[in-house]
Amino acid sequence: MTDLHTELDETHDPSRRSWVETANAPDAAFPIQNLPLGMFSPPGGSPRAGVAIGDSILDLSRCLGLGFVGELDQGRVDSHSLNGLFAQGNKVLRQLRRRVGRLLDADGAEADALRRHEAGVLHAAASCTMHLPVRIGDFTDFFAGIHHARTAGTFMTPDNPLPRNYKWLPIAYHSRASSIRTSGGPIVRPNGQWTETPASDPVVGPSRRLDIELEVGMFVGPGNPLGETIPVESASDHIAGFCLLNDWSARDLQFWEMVPLGPFLGKNFGTTISPWVVTTEALRPFRIPAMPRPPGDPRPLDYLWDDADQAKGGLTIDLEVRFS
Amino acid sequence: MTDLHTELDETHDPSRRSWVETANAPDAAFPIQNLPLGMFSPPGGSPRAGVAIGDSILDLSRCLGLGFVGELDQGRVDSHSLNGLFAQGNKVLRQLRRRVGRLLDADGAEADALRRHEAGVLHAAASCTMHLPVRIGDFTDFFAGIHHARTAGTFMTPDNPLPRNYKWLPIAYHSRASSIRTSGGPIVRPNGQWTETPASDPVVGPSRRLDIELEVGMFVGPGNPLGETIPVESASDHIAGFCLLNDWSARDLQFWEMVPLGPFLGKNFGTTISPWVVTTEALRPFRIPAMPRPPGDPRPLDYLWDDADQAKGGLTIDLEVRFS
Repeated sequence: MTDLHTELDETHDPSRRSWVETANAPDAAFPIQNLPLGMFSPPGGSPRAGVAIGDSILDLSRCLGLGFVGELDQGRVDSHSLNGLFAQGNKVLRQLRRRVGRLLDADGAEADALRRHEAGVLHAAASCTMHLPVRIGDFTDFFAGIHHARTAGTFMTPDNPLPRNYKWLPIAYHSRASSIRTSGGPIVRPNGQWTETPASDPVVGPSRRLDIELEVGMFVGPGNPLGETIPVESASDHIAGFCLLNDWSARDLQFWEMVPLGPFLGKNFGTTISPWVVTTEALRPFRIPAMPRPPGDPRPLDYLWDDADQAKGGLTIDLEVRFS
Repeated sequence: MTDLHTELDETHDPSRRSWVETANAPDAAFPIQNLPLGMFSPPGGSPRAGVAIGDSILDLSRCLGLGFVGELDQGRVDSHSLNGLFAQGNKVLRQLRRRVGRLLDADGAEADALRRHEAGVLHAAASCTMHLPVRIGDFTDFFAGIHHARTAGTFMTPDNPLPRNYKWLPIAYHSRASSIRTSGGPIVRPNGQWTETPASDPVVGPSRRLDIELEVGMFVGPGNPLGETIPVESASDHIAGFCLLNDWSARDLQFWEMVPLGPFLGKNFGTTISPWVVTTEALRPFRIPAMPRPPGDPRPLDYLWDDADQAKGGLTIDLEVRFS
C-alpha cells in the first residue's frame, strides 16, 4: 500500500553531472546523486545546515536566505540542528532534494544565478567544522543482523547463542544518547571492572578488550506522539536518513556488567557517527527485498509483517572497515 | 575529605516559619525547610522557574528580574529548564536556597518588600501548570536496592536471583529519556508480545501485567566532560536534587524481550516524575550512614569506596504508595 521509496526521479539519474566538478569524479563520495545533509560551520562562521557536494558544502541556510529554496519552510531549518527539517517528513525532504539537485546540476537553469553567489553559498569542505546533525533525544541500539547476533550470543550466552525471542521481534536496548559524537575526535579508553575468569573476583583498570562495531544509524524524522503506534506499513516514512555508526565497545567491561539488565558502561563511553546524513530519498535505487527467512522459521506476527516491506524493505549497501 | 552535605544552616531550622501561612501547617508538603525547585506556567503565562512554598509557588524568574536574588547569575535561569541552574553546582544552589529562605521567612527583613510585589511573585499552585524541570539528556536506571534486585531477579533469572556482579558494582541500564513526563497525565497501556508459558509462541496485545515502581530519581548537576571521571569522593557534589519516579513497567513484555540486552519496550512507554526537585541541600538533615554490608560480602574496589560516603552517604526518607 505504502510508497516504499523505490520510485526514482531525476535526482537518481546516474548520468547527471554537477557544476561542482569534484562531484563528477568516478570515486566521489558526494556525487550529485547523493546530496547528504549535515550541520557545519564555515571558517569563522556559526553552525548551519549544508549539503555535501564533491569536495564542497552547499550552504543550505544561506540558499534559503537568498530565496533559492523557496518552497521550504525556512523556520524549520534552524541553526542548531536538522531536527526541524527531518520532522517535516520525507515528502518535504524529497522536494528539498529535487530543488538542491536542480541548483547544483551542470545543465540547470539556476546554476548561473547560484554561481554568482558562489563565494557565499559554497564552502571548501576541508576548511569547515562538522557538528552532530541532530539533537539526539534517544539512542536505540538494535541487535541486527542475525550473523552478528549469533556471534555475539556465542560470547554472551554460549548455551543459547540466538535467544528464542530473536526470530519474533526486534531485540534492542537504549544506549547513551549523550555520548554520541561525530567521528574523527578522540575516544578515551574507559576504565572499568572485569574478571579474568568467570569465577574470579573483578579487577579495575583501563579496558583491555576495546572493540569497534560497524553499524548503520537511522534518524527518526516525524515520529509519533507518546502512546500512539506507527503501523509497520508506514514505518519507513519516519526514517529521514542514515549515517555510519561506530559503537565503540569495551567487551571485558560489558560481559561482566551486563547480566541481567544489558550493556551499560561497556558501551556508553563513546559512539561516533558520520556527520553526513544520507537521506532515505537518496537510497531509493538501493532498495531490495528483505533477507529471506530460512524454512522452518516462524512467520512474524501480523503487526510486524508487511508484504511491500518484504518485497522492497531491504537496502543493499557495501560497508567496509579499514584500519590505518 | 569531601563535604557530604551534612552541615546544617538556618534553612534547615525546624522552627523557622514563613509568611506564606499554608507552609506552616504541620502536614505541609512544602514547608520553608523544603523549598524545592521546578518549572511552571502561571495562568496565561509562559514557563519559568519557581520554588514551592505551602500552597503557592514563588516566581523565581520574576524575583530575579526584580533584583531579589542578586547573587545568582540570571543568565543561567532561563525559561526552558533548570539545567543551567543545576550545572552551577550545589554551592550556588545553597546560596539560592539561603536567599529564598530569607525572602520567605516570616521574620525576614525583606519579606515586606517582597510582599509588596506579592501578586506578581507568588502564584496559587493549584492554578499553575507544571512542566518537566529539566531537559533530560539521558536516563539511567540503577538496579537499587538489593531487596528489589533480589525479588526482581527471582522472576528474571530464577537460578541466580542476585547476579554475582551486584555486590561489586552498580548495575544499571539506560532507559528512554524521551518518554519521561511529569506525573498526573495519562499513561497508555502498551501493546506488545509475551508468551503464555516459557515454551509457547508469543502473542501480541495490550499488556496484561502492567506494574508500577516507586523509585527516587536523581538529577545530575555539573557532570563531567566525556572521557573524564568523577572520583567517588566528589560524586555527591554532582547531584543537584531528587524527585519521585514511577517507572511504569509491562512485566509480560519485559520478560519476553529482555534476554540478552535488557529491558526495552516493557519499560520505555512512560516514566513519570514529580515536577518538584527536592535539592541535595534540603536533604542535609536526612543523611545517614550507608546500609551496612553483611559479613562475608566483598569489600568494593577502592575506586568505589569512600569512608565519608559510608559514614554519611545514605538518605533516610519514608516513601509510600497509595492506590486511590
